[in-house]
Amino acid sequence: MSKRLGAQTVKFSCPPIIIQTASIVGTKEGEGPLAKDFDKVLEDDKCGAPSWEQAESMLQQNVASLVLDKAQLSANQINYVFSGDLQNQCISAHYGLRSLNIPFFGIYGACSTMTESLSLAAMITDGGFSDYTMCITSSHFCSAEKQFRFPLEYGGQRAPSAQWTVTGTGGAIVAREGTGPCITHVTTGKIVDMGITDINNMGGAMAPAAADTLTAHFKDTGRSPEDYDLILTGDLGVIGSDLLTDLVNRDGYNIYHNHNDCGKMIFDIKNQDVHAGGSGCGCCGSVFCGPVYKKLKKGELKNILVMATGALMNPAILQQGESIPCIAHAVAISLKEA
Amino acid sequence: MSKRLGAQTVKFSCPPIIIQTASIVGTKEGEGPLAKDFDKVLEDDKCGAPSWEQAESMLQQNVASLVLDKAQLSANQINYVFSGDLQNQCISAHYGLRSLNIPFFGIYGACSTMTESLSLAAMITDGGFSDYTMCITSSHFCSAEKQFRFPLEYGGQRAPSAQWTVTGTGGAIVAREGTGPCITHVTTGKIVDMGITDINNMGGAMAPAAADTLTAHFKDTGRSPEDYDLILTGDLGVIGSDLLTDLVNRDGYNIYHNHNDCGKMIFDIKNQDVHAGGSGCGCCGSVFCGPVYKKLKKGELKNILVMATGALMNPAILQQGESIPCIAHAVAISLKEA
Repeated sequence: MSKRLGAQTVKFSCPPIIIQTASIVGTKEGEGPLAKDFDKVLEDDKCGAPSWEQAESMLQQNVASLVLDKAQLSANQINYVFSGDLQNQCISAHYGLRSLNIPFFGIYGACSTMTESLSLAAMITDGGFSDYTMCITSSHFCSAEKQFRFPLEYGGQRAPSAQWTVTGTGGAIVAREGTGPCITHVTTGKIVDMGITDINNMGGAMAPAAADTLTAHFKDTGRSPEDYDLILTGDLGVIGSDLLTDLVNRDGYNIYHNHNDCGKMIFDIKNQDVHAGGSGCGCCGSVFCGPVYKKLKKGELKNILVMATGALMNPAILQQGESIPCIAHAVAISLKEA
Repeated sequence: MSKRLGAQTVKFSCPPIIIQTASIVGTKEGEGPLAKDFDKVLEDDKCGAPSWEQAESMLQQNVASLVLDKAQLSANQINYVFSGDLQNQCISAHYGLRSLNIPFFGIYGACSTMTESLSLAAMITDGGFSDYTMCITSSHFCSAEKQFRFPLEYGGQRAPSAQWTVTGTGGAIVAREGTGPCITHVTTGKIVDMGITDINNMGGAMAPAAADTLTAHFKDTGRSPEDYDLILTGDLGVIGSDLLTDLVNRDGYNIYHNHNDCGKMIFDIKNQDVHAGGSGCGCCGSVFCGPVYKKLKKGELKNILVMATGALMNPAILQQGESIPCIAHAVAISLKEA
């Protein structure tokens, strides 16, 4: 009855179905190349709220409503919600979703939150504990800058390797029955810390964790890069993506042709002044729950591996000279055969 | 095949077993009435570390080693670890456990973390995804004061309703096979926000969430207070405990005789100057994984409901005038019949 496959992977006996998703992004993301594939582009990044923290909470609140509407479900049909974000004590999730009245599991995986939530949702669905589970995450450029770097008003110079936190949110509903792409496997990441201390190079810090999970996935499942139309990382950006593809190539896995990264896709890197690309929980959240899910529904993508990546530090511990532990969680998604 | 029972509860077909626990507490907790029932009492609350944050990380690192030793397991036999804490971005978990090399799920439930982790561990165990799962949490008085209230050096006056964050950690191993008390049911909490804004009265803020989960547990399972030797809340303290018992009594559930709270148990409230009692993730963590688990193993307790409670705010959002959303997760534990 064990569903384990190797050291880090599980395979589902009844692959849970992602029956619906929703995505909302900010104004800058709405000027990027994926703009038309999000459900909603904000006109005001502050959402009319009095603070950036409250604006980000509204993102989660609004995407939850939207995904429920799109799935034609009411909140009381949802058995569990998994959510988390980058704000201290995950307040975007807690304040944004407090009125839902749904049993709630708070998670913290930094920018790996989207796939952490999909992983746990798939497990409790296949395990027989949930019929409908909602997975939500968000990030907001302004709340993240304020908390992790500098007040916006300071106008700090950004390093060339720095990434731009996506203002955006994604929501997905995982179900036992229904139609849509299915989660077939989950490969759960270990914490990997290669001693990187540069807070302005998150992609570089996270790439080894992504490589670790990706090679584990191939070893555990016996699959190879060719089994996927797309291997999609969360927010490695330009620098981290180059590192990841090179790192796994050394281990014999050539993903140069079918790897892409949400942080590279969401912005026009050359013209939007985002340096190394997008980042944040909402980067993988909005790109997976927007354009990528749409391509799965249309059959333009058939088999994908989504692997969001997270950097698990905070500013105080880096100021104490510590390095940056990172993690990546992979979810294999296939179109359900009729 | 659904294991759902009512709106918020699941019942396990093969109740997962808590095969071992470990607990470590600080010096003040070591002067309290439960001192002899923890595995280890620190001689130095800083654990020889250069900062409070790093000291708390060492608590998690040390309790993980200890529970593995006590269970006679090596880290590579553990399929998953669930951990979280109160530090911004849960750094105690990430830095404390980064060397374990175990697939890691970060969770954030504030002081409800111990039972959130046991809930998820039980689900993935009964679901067939894990043979051994480790659940860990911690809190540290000094890192919590610094982050949530005032620098210690400021010597701020504490309100009578304030609670004292426990310096402590608890670790448990949940298994598919073995001997020990079993997790039979899990009742997952909803976020409850009754509009309380007083950061110095967490027990008062959390009590309605505890009442909500407890009444849901009784309704979902058809059980009554008499089915439990002990209904143990996490850190409601003196004020929150009085509120909880009165609140559920209005709904027809008399728990005056068999309710206790880890925050009331861990300190000598009258003589240790802790005002309304103990709090923090490590409060339920150390008391459940220490004295309470020992009583279960000895058969002095046979059926208990453990319900850790969490306040899901951060200081910034309270300064913006927001109220405190709270949550409570309940886990029913019974001695395994031979």
